[in-house]
Amino acid sequence: MRALLCHCRNYRSEVKRLSNTPAGIQPEKVKEKILEAQDAVVVLLTVEAGDRIEEFIPRLAEDIQIMAKDTAHNTLVLFPFGHLSNKLADSDTTLKALDLLEESLKDFNPKRAHFGSDKKLLLDIFGHKGNVRYREYN
Amino acid sequence: MRALLCHCRNYRSEVKRLSNTPAGIQPEKVKEKILEAQDAVVVLLTVEAGDRIEEFIPRLAEDIQIMAKDTAHNTLVLFPFGHLSNKLADSDTTLKALDLLEESLKDFNPKRAHFGSDKKLLLDIFGHKGNVRYREYN
Repeated sequence: MRALLCHCRNYRSEVKRLSNTPAGIQPEKVKEKILEAQDAVVVLLTVEAGDRIEEFIPRLAEDIQIMAKDTAHNTLVLFPFGHLSNKLADSDTTLKALDLLEESLKDFNPKRAHFGSDKKLLLDIFGHKGNVRYREYN
Repeated sequence: MRALLCHCRNYRSEVKRLSNTPAGIQPEKVKEKILEAQDAVVVLLTVEAGDRIEEFIPRLAEDIQIMAKDTAHNTLVLFPFGHLSNKLADSDTTLKALDLLEESLKDFNPKRAHFGSDKKLLLDIFGHKGNVRYREYN
């Protein structure tokens, strides 16, 4: 499991169409096409094949909470992002990981971007030290 | 070596201060604090310890040229981004890789972001299929 945590002044995503790759992808139902946030920690999450998600998600949740504390911004965006690895998990596992992560962070009432679509994505990242953090869980 | 190729409607970066991490980092001289581009392929590049850069850079350059062709946009931004791996190369190797990549793509006259600084970063990514591409070279 890999994640890129970005401290953003502005974030915006917009679902343009459902994905048909990688093979077998099962997009979730689209509730909201557009998602926006300001002064937020945006979590780009790649779940990999073989990930022990029950073990990894609590560690990721802790890293996210540390970044929220460091930045003094409690708005969180969870964004499924299949572009930090070449060995992606299947859709069921990715959605389960997102569910677990959302539940782990429920006190923050995180926003969650759609899984399984091509999206426009705006990341307007602050320029301070520690603005972007990369994490791998093995 | 890992890279994230992003097809951006708008890109902007601004050097805020020189980095002092990871230990031993040797920032290059700042020529321009602000770099901007529109309708560009932005290459976030992480050079890793042990990378055979003479072998990997031509492959990356080819992938970049394919994306430029696919998107019909020839503006390129090369952005050193130490956030796609936890085993980073030293500064000399990263700068050499950037030099090689810039030379390989000289026909495109690529823009190059500063190495060794905390930067504000704006990525405004198009929403089409293939808008973001992840590559690993091993």
